[in-house]
Amino acid sequence: MIPNVLAERYSSASMNDIWSAEGRIVLEREYWIAVMKAQRDLGLDISDEAIAAYEKVKNQVDVASIMARERVTRHDVKARIEEFNGLSGFEDIHKGLTSRDLTENVEQLQVFRGLLVIREKVVATLRRMRERAEQWDDIVLTARTHNVAAQPTTLGKRIAMFGEELLSGYQVLEDVIAGYAVRGLKGAVGTQMDQLSLFEGDAEKVSELERRIVKHLGISQQWSNVGQVYPRSLDLRVVSVLTELASGPSSFCKTLRLMAGNETASEGFAPGQTGSSAMPHKMNSRSCERVNGFHVILKGYLAMAAGLAGDQWNEGDVSCSVVRRVMLPDAFFALDGMFETYLTILDQMDAYEGVIAAETARYLPFLMTTTVMMEAVKRGVGRETAHKVIKEHAVATVADLRTGAVEKNNLLDRLAEDGRLALTRNELEEILKRGDREVGSAKSQVKFFSGEVKKLEEKWPEAAAYGPGVIL
Amino acid sequence: MIPNVLAERYSSASMNDIWSAEGRIVLEREYWIAVMKAQRDLGLDISDEAIAAYEKVKNQVDVASIMARERVTRHDVKARIEEFNGLSGFEDIHKGLTSRDLTENVEQLQVFRGLLVIREKVVATLRRMRERAEQWDDIVLTARTHNVAAQPTTLGKRIAMFGEELLSGYQVLEDVIAGYAVRGLKGAVGTQMDQLSLFEGDAEKVSELERRIVKHLGISQQWSNVGQVYPRSLDLRVVSVLTELASGPSSFCKTLRLMAGNETASEGFAPGQTGSSAMPHKMNSRSCERVNGFHVILKGYLAMAAGLAGDQWNEGDVSCSVVRRVMLPDAFFALDGMFETYLTILDQMDAYEGVIAAETARYLPFLMTTTVMMEAVKRGVGRETAHKVIKEHAVATVADLRTGAVEKNNLLDRLAEDGRLALTRNELEEILKRGDREVGSAKSQVKFFSGEVKKLEEKWPEAAAYGPGVIL
Amino acid sequence: MIPNVLAERYSSASMNDIWSAEGRIVLEREYWIAVMKAQRDLGLDISDEAIAAYEKVKNQVDVASIMARERVTRHDVKARIEEFNGLSGFEDIHKGLTSRDLTENVEQLQVFRGLLVIREKVVATLRRMRERAEQWDDIVLTARTHNVAAQPTTLGKRIAMFGEELLSGYQVLEDVIAGYAVRGLKGAVGTQMDQLSLFEGDAEKVSELERRIVKHLGISQQWSNVGQVYPRSLDLRVVSVLTELASGPSSFCKTLRLMAGNETASEGFAPGQTGSSAMPHKMNSRSCERVNGFHVILKGYLAMAAGLAGDQWNEGDVSCSVVRRVMLPDAFFALDGMFETYLTILDQMDAYEGVIAAETARYLPFLMTTTVMMEAVKRGVGRETAHKVIKEHAVATVADLRTGAVEKNNLLDRLAEDGRLALTRNELEEILKRGDREVGSAKSQVKFFSGEVKKLEEKWPEAAAYGPGVIL
Amino acid sequence: MIPNVLAERYSSASMNDIWSAEGRIVLEREYWIAVMKAQRDLGLDISDEAIAAYEKVKNQVDVASIMARERVTRHDVKARIEEFNGLSGFEDIHKGLTSRDLTENVEQLQVFRGLLVIREKVVATLRRMRERAEQWDDIVLTARTHNVAAQPTTLGKRIAMFGEELLSGYQVLEDVIAGYAVRGLKGAVGTQMDQLSLFEGDAEKVSELERRIVKHLGISQQWSNVGQVYPRSLDLRVVSVLTELASGPSSFCKTLRLMAGNETASEGFAPGQTGSSAMPHKMNSRSCERVNGFHVILKGYLAMAAGLAGDQWNEGDVSCSVVRRVMLPDAFFALDGMFETYLTILDQMDAYEGVIAAETARYLPFLMTTTVMMEAVKRGVGRETAHKVIKEHAVATVADLRTGAVEKNNLLDRLAEDGRLALTRNELEEILKRGDREVGSAKSQVKFFSGEVKKLEEKWPEAAAYGPGVIL
Repeated sequence: MIPNVLAERYSSASMNDIWSAEGRIVLEREYWIAVMKAQRDLGLDISDEAIAAYEKVKNQVDVASIMARERVTRHDVKARIEEFNGLSGFEDIHKGLTSRDLTENVEQLQVFRGLLVIREKVVATLRRMRERAEQWDDIVLTARTHNVAAQPTTLGKRIAMFGEELLSGYQVLEDVIAGYAVRGLKGAVGTQMDQLSLFEGDAEKVSELERRIVKHLGISQQWSNVGQVYPRSLDLRVVSVLTELASGPSSFCKTLRLMAGNETASEGFAPGQTGSSAMPHKMNSRSCERVNGFHVILKGYLAMAAGLAGDQWNEGDVSCSVVRRVMLPDAFFALDGMFETYLTILDQMDAYEGVIAAETARYLPFLMTTTVMMEAVKRGVGRETAHKVIKEHAVATVADLRTGAVEKNNLLDRLAEDGRLALTRNELEEILKRGDREVGSAKSQVKFFSGEVKKLEEKWPEAAAYGPGVIL
Repeated sequence: MIPNVLAERYSSASMNDIWSAEGRIVLEREYWIAVMKAQRDLGLDISDEAIAAYEKVKNQVDVASIMARERVTRHDVKARIEEFNGLSGFEDIHKGLTSRDLTENVEQLQVFRGLLVIREKVVATLRRMRERAEQWDDIVLTARTHNVAAQPTTLGKRIAMFGEELLSGYQVLEDVIAGYAVRGLKGAVGTQMDQLSLFEGDAEKVSELERRIVKHLGISQQWSNVGQVYPRSLDLRVVSVLTELASGPSSFCKTLRLMAGNETASEGFAPGQTGSSAMPHKMNSRSCERVNGFHVILKGYLAMAAGLAGDQWNEGDVSCSVVRRVMLPDAFFALDGMFETYLTILDQMDAYEGVIAAETARYLPFLMTTTVMMEAVKRGVGRETAHKVIKEHAVATVADLRTGAVEKNNLLDRLAEDGRLALTRNELEEILKRGDREVGSAKSQVKFFSGEVKKLEEKWPEAAAYGPGVIL
Repeated sequence: MIPNVLAERYSSASMNDIWSAEGRIVLEREYWIAVMKAQRDLGLDISDEAIAAYEKVKNQVDVASIMARERVTRHDVKARIEEFNGLSGFEDIHKGLTSRDLTENVEQLQVFRGLLVIREKVVATLRRMRERAEQWDDIVLTARTHNVAAQPTTLGKRIAMFGEELLSGYQVLEDVIAGYAVRGLKGAVGTQMDQLSLFEGDAEKVSELERRIVKHLGISQQWSNVGQVYPRSLDLRVVSVLTELASGPSSFCKTLRLMAGNETASEGFAPGQTGSSAMPHKMNSRSCERVNGFHVILKGYLAMAAGLAGDQWNEGDVSCSVVRRVMLPDAFFALDGMFETYLTILDQMDAYEGVIAAETARYLPFLMTTTVMMEAVKRGVGRETAHKVIKEHAVATVADLRTGAVEKNNLLDRLAEDGRLALTRNELEEILKRGDREVGSAKSQVKFFSGEVKKLEEKWPEAAAYGPGVIL
Repeated sequence: MIPNVLAERYSSASMNDIWSAEGRIVLEREYWIAVMKAQRDLGLDISDEAIAAYEKVKNQVDVASIMARERVTRHDVKARIEEFNGLSGFEDIHKGLTSRDLTENVEQLQVFRGLLVIREKVVATLRRMRERAEQWDDIVLTARTHNVAAQPTTLGKRIAMFGEELLSGYQVLEDVIAGYAVRGLKGAVGTQMDQLSLFEGDAEKVSELERRIVKHLGISQQWSNVGQVYPRSLDLRVVSVLTELASGPSSFCKTLRLMAGNETASEGFAPGQTGSSAMPHKMNSRSCERVNGFHVILKGYLAMAAGLAGDQWNEGDVSCSVVRRVMLPDAFFALDGMFETYLTILDQMDAYEGVIAAETARYLPFLMTTTVMMEAVKRGVGRETAHKVIKEHAVATVADLRTGAVEKNNLLDRLAEDGRLALTRNELEEILKRGDREVGSAKSQVKFFSGEVKKLEEKWPEAAAYGPGVIL
C-alpha cells in the first residue's frame, strides 16, 4: 500500500489518529448510535436490543469488507451502512438521514479536533519562542533589510518579531474555533423533511434531536440554513488560518537559513546526523528548509480550498468530495508536521555570539548613519542634505572596501572631514562608541512579547509544556 | 494611459477614491504633517511656519513631476519627499522615519478603509437577500442535489442558504477589522532607534509620538514587534476574508445560472440591454457569470497574498512591493465590483412561478420517495429494504420516461402494486398530495435568517440602505 | 498506517507501481549498480564480486530498517546507502556521487514514466471520444451559451469540441516528453568535481560515464548546466501539462452534469449502484463531479509546483523536498484517477434522444433567430435593425411563455406580422422547417476530429485499446 | 483615472501598445473590414462605398462614447458595433458574426503578439547571460548548497546554470507559439451556421472566408471544433509558459540577493539612486527583489488561468470575461516588466573578486572534503568510513571556529593526524593547493551554454540586440 507521506514521515500521532480510516469509521458509528438513542428517546420505535447490537460491534472495523461493498454500490456511505447493519443484524441506523447528515458532521468533528491539536502546537511554539527571545535578549545583532546591514537590533527581538506574527495568528485561530459551526441534522436538501416525517411533523422534537446530536459532537455553533452541505467557504477559512499560522515560522526559518549562510546562527545538528551524503563537512539547514517546504504545500491546499468555495450548485453535490478527502487531512498533516519540525529547530538551534559580534563590528559605521543624520538634523542641517552627504561617503567607502582600496571601514574619517554635516570627529566617535548598544526599543518590545505569551502559557499550561516527537 | 480595468469598469467611486494615486499622496502628506506636529509638540525644533508651508501645498499633487524625480532616485518615497519639500521650501518631513514608517501605515489605512467599504456592501447585500428570501418564502421549489431533483424546498430558503454563508463571512470580516493592527512608527528595522535619537533616548516621548500617529490613522490595534515591515500574513488574512466574502454570492450566481437554464429564474434584463450581438433572443446570465469571474480573480490575488506570507528575510525588503501595488487595490476593486454587480442582480432578478410549479409537479413522485421510505420504516419495513424497493421502481420509471415508454410519471402506481413496502395506494396518494407543501423547516429557517440580518440592518442602517451604482 | 487516498481509491496499478516506496528503492539500487558497472568498466577499482553482492540483495527491500537508520542520520539517502551496503557487505556504491546524483535522476525517471502512462490514457480517452462523437453525430441538440438555448448543434459535435481540447493538450504532452531533460551525474554543485577526481581529471571518461547512466535511464535529453538540482520550473512544466490535460474532460463533465439537469444525457448508472443513501430515486453525476474534483486537486498541485519554481538559492537545497514528495506522485495519481473515472463515464454514459428532440422543438423559433436575421439582411434590411426587431419580439415571447400568457412559442407569428423584417410567413416557416437539421459545419468538424484521432490510434494501438479498471 | 500600475510603472511601450484600449479597437475594426472585404469578394452584397466609409473612420476612437453606449446595451461588443456603424453611416459589419467571432480572434492576436514580444526579451536576456557567463568564467566561487559552502564553482557557471533554465523555457515558448491555434470564424455555437446562411449553404465559400480571416491575423494554426469560445486551457498554457520563463531569472535574482548579503556581488547602483530614505549607506537589491515580486504576481495570474480552464459550460459563456480582461494583459505586463528589470540588472551588476577570493580561501579546506574522500577511496578506504572520519573532524573544526577556539581553519592538520584516512599531510596539502582551481567541468559547461545561445542570437539578431528602457 502507498502510505500518505505527510502522515507517515512528518505529522504526529495525535493528528494522525484524528484522520485515520479506522478512527473515522468508529466516529461515524458512534454518531449513528447517538442519533438512534436520541430518536428512541424522542419516541421512534428503535429497540434497546438493536442499539445494544450496534454498540457491541462498533469497533469491529474491516476496511477491506467495506471497500468490497463500495465496489458494488459505488456509494461509500451506503457501503458503510450495509456493513454496520450486517455486523449488528439490524437496519435501524441512518433513519431520516442523508449521507451528508453523517459525513458532514463527522468530518467537521475531525476538522474541529484538528484545530484543537494545532492550537496546542501553537502555544507550545510560542513558549519556546518566548524563551529564546528572552535568552538572547542581550545579543546585539546587525539587523538586515534587503539582506544587507541596516541598523542594530537584538537576536531576541528578531525572534520576538516572528513570534508576534504567530501570536497574531493565534488570535485568528481562536476566532475560527469559536465561530466554527457544525451543519447538524438537516436532511437531504437542508429542510429536515425526513426527520419531520419520522416525528409526524413535530418541529420541536426535530429541534431537540438536532440539539442532542450537536451536543454529542461537542461543537457549540451550528448552521441554520444549509443545503445538503455546509458552505465550503468554511473550509477555505480553516485552510487559510492554517496557512497563516505557518507564515511566522516560515519567515523565521528563511531568516535562519540566511543566518546560517553568514554563520551567525544555525538550526543545530543532532548527534549521528549527516549533512550531505557527498560532502562530510556539511551541516545544513535542512529542517528550516523543510518548514519552508510545508508552507508551499499549505499554499497548494489553500488553492484547493479556494477552488471549492463559491462553487456550490443548488443544494450541493459531491464535486468537493475527492478534494476534501485529500485537502483536509493533508493540510492538517502538513501544518502539524511543520510545527513538529519547527519545535525541534527551536530546541536545537545555536547562535554564535563571536561571529555575531564580529559582523556588527565590521558594519558599525554604516549601522549608525541614521544616528549621524539625526544628530546633524538636530544641529539644523536639512534632513535631505545630510542624507545626501552621508550617502556620498558611505557609497565610496563600500566601493573602496570591496576593491581592497581600504582595509578598514573608514567612513567616520570621511564624515569628520566633511564640514557640511556640522559634526566633529569627537561627536562622531561618541555616536559610534554607543552604537553596539543602540538597540532602541528592542528590549521593551521583547518584554511585551514575553508578557503576552506568558498569558497564554497560563491559560494553556499543558499545551505550553508540549514537546515535539523525534523528527526524521 | 492604460487604465486599471477593474477600477474603470467595475468598482465604485468610494473604493476607487481610497486607492487613487492622488488620494494616496494626500494621505501620505497628511501623515507627514501629523508626524511633524506631534514631533514639534513633543519638543523637536520644527517651526510652525514650516508646518504651515507644507499644509498649504499638500493638495498640489503633480504625479508627473514625482515620476520624473523617481526616474533619478529609483526610490519612490525619496521622490515624494523631494517633491513635497520642493513645494513647501522646507526639509522638515520624514525626520527619524524610514520609508516604511510612511508607506506601511498609509497602505494599512487604505486597506482598513477598504474593509469598511466592503462591510457596508456586505450589509447592503444581506438586506436584499433577506428581502428576497422573505418575498419568495412561499414558492415551493424542487431542490436539487447533483443538479437533479431531490426534495422540495422553497425559493426563499435557497436564497437564505447562500445568505447565511455571507452572514458567516460577515462575522469573520468583523473579526479581521477588530484585530487589524497597524505597524506604527518603528523605524528602519523596528527598534525606533532614530526617533529615540531625535528625542535623546526618551522612550516615553517616542511612545507618545507613536500613540498620536496611530490615533491620527484611526486604527485601534498596533503591532509591537516588527521589522521594517508588518508581517505579510496580515495581507493574506485580508485577502482571504475578501475571497471568503465572495463565496456565498458566487455560489448563488452559479445556482441562478443553473435556474436560468431551466427557466425557473433569471437575473433579469434591463431596458435596452442586448443579450447577444448575434442572437437577438438571448437573455443571458452575464452578470451572474461576471460574479463568478470575480471569484476566480480573487483566488488569483489570494495566491499572490499567499506568495508573500512566510517569505520575510530578516527585517524585510521590497520583494513584496510590486505585488502589493497590484494585489491590494485590485483585490478590493474586484470584490467591490462583485458586490456592485451582485446587488444589481438581487435588485433585478425574476422568479417564474409557473415554470417552478410545473417542474415540481413533474418530479413530485420522486421528491417524495424519502417520505415514502420514512412511512414504510414507521410501518416496520427495514430502512435498507425500503430503499432497495423504491430505488428499483424509481430507476425503472425514469428509464421509461426518458425513452417515452410512459408519458407520465407513474412511480406511485408501481409502488402501490409492490407489497414489500406495506403502503396502500391511498396512503401513497396522501403522501403525494401533501408533497407540494412539504418543505420541512424551510420557513422557520428563513425566519431565523431574517432575524439575524435585521439585527445588522439596525446596527448599520446607512449601509443597509446602500444601493449599487449603474453597472456596465 | 494512513494510506495515500488518491493511490488507494482512484489511480491505477500501473501508476501506483511507479511511485511505490519499494519500487523506488529498487530503481535506486539498479541505478547505483549501473553507476558501479560503468565506473568499473572505465577503470575504477570496483570488484565484480562487490557488484554481484549488491545485485544479489537489490530486491531485499526492508522499508522499516531504512526508516530506523534515517532516524539516526536524519538523511534519507545516507540511510539507504548504509542499508544497501549493510546487506551486501561492501562500501562501493555512491562513489563520487552526491545524494542528488541519485535522487534527481531516479525521481525524473518516475516522472518520465508517469508521463508515458498518462499519454496512454490520453490516447485511450481520445479513442472513446471519437467513437461517441461518431455515434451521436446525427443527434441534433440545442447548443447552449450562457446555459440557455442558442442555436442547433449535434451531440457528436459537442463531444468533439471537448475532445479537440484534449487533442491539443496531447500535442503539448508530446512536446514535454520530447524535451524532458534528465539532470545526469553532475556532483554536489554541478561541476562533476568528484567524478573528475575519481578519474584523475579525465573529462572524456566522466562524459562517457554520464552517457552510460543516462542511457540506463532511457531518457534522451540531458541538462548541461545545473547545480545540485535540476531547475524546478521543469516540475512546473510537468504539472502544468497534467492540469491542462484534465481541462477538456473537466469541461465535458461539467456539461454532462448540466445535461443531466435537463435529462438530455447522463453518465449512466451501474447495476447495484446507489445514487443516494437517503433518496432512492437519485441517479447522480457523481463520477462527473469527481472528475471536476480532480481538476481542483490538480490546480492545488500546480500552485505547489509554482511555489518551487524560481526559488532556487545558489546551487540548491532541500526546501523543495517535502513538497515534491507530495506534489509529484499525488499530481500523477490525481490525473490518472481522473482518466480512469472519465473513461468509465465515456463507456457508460447515455443520451436521451427523445428528451433532446423535445427540447429542440420547444426552442426552435429561438434557435433560428440568427437565420431569420441573415435572411432579412440578405433582403437588404440593416443588420442592427433586424437585430432590434427580432429581439423585441423574442423577449416578449419569452415573457409570455414564462407567465403562461401564451402556451406555445409563437415567435414566428409575431415576426410574420412585423413588416420591418421583410419576411413573409411562408419564408419564416421555411426557415423553421429546416431548423432541426441546421447544424452548419458540425458534421464536417466531427469528421475532422475523427481523422486526427485515428492517426493517433494507429500510432499507439495498444494505448487506444486500453480500458479502465473498475472504479469505486 | 486609476492607471494599470503594471503598465504604467514596469512594462515597455511595445507591450503596452498591444493591450491599449485604443489599439484594440483599431484591431477590431481592421478585423471587421477584413471580414467585409472577404464577404464582398465571395459574393455578399456589401458595397465598396460602405467599406470605404468604415475604413475612413477606423482610427476615430472615442472610448468615452463607446462606454456611454455600453451603459445602455450592457454589451460591450454591441456598443462598439453601434459606434462604428454610427461613425460610418452603414450597417454592414458583423454580418453572420457573433461577438466572440470578433473578440476571441482579436484577443488571440493580442496574446500571440505578446508572445512574440516576450520571445524577443528572452533572446536579449540570454545574450546578456551568455556575455556575463563568459566574462566571469575565470572567477572561482564558493558554490553553496543549503546556503552554506559546498564545493568550488565559477561565477560564470552559476550564471550559465540559471541561463540554461531560461534557455529550456525558450524551447517551450517556441512550442507554444508554433502550436498556438486561433478560434476562427465559427459563429455563435461553433457550427458556422450563420455564415452558411449568408452564403446559401456553400461550405466551400465559408471555408475560404475563414481562411482569409485567419490569414489576415497572421496565425497559422486554427481550431476546428469549438463552441462560442476557444478552450481556456490554451490561456492556461500561455500563462504557464510566462510563469516558467520568469523562473530562471527569479532564481538568479534570489541568488544575487544572497550574494549581496555576503558582498560577493551586487545588482549595481545607478548614479543618483537612493537605497533607503532613512539609511544613507544602503545599496539594496531592490531590482532583484522586484523580479522576485513579478514571479509572485505571475503565479497569481496562473491561478486565475487555472481557474478558467476546465470550467466551460456547454458551448461557453462570459464567466471568463472579466478574468481575462485582467489576467491576460496583466500577466504579459508583469513578465515584460520583469524582463525590463532583469535586463537592467544584468547590465549593471557587479562582482567583487576580492571578496569572492577571500571567501573561497576561508572555506577551502571544507570545499575540498569530497576530494579528500575520493583520494582516500582510491587508496582503498571504504567510502562511508572516509565520510565518517572527515565529518568528525570537519564538524569539530566548524565548532572551534565559531566559538573562537581556533582562529584559522585547521581541518587539514586534523585530517593529517588521523591515520584512518591513509593520506599524508603532503598529499592533503596538494589537494588543497589545487583546490582554488578545482572547478570540474564548469568551463566546458559554460562553453556549451554559450554555443547554444549564440545559435539563437544568429537566428534572432534584432532581438539579441534589444536593450531595456530606463526602469523606475
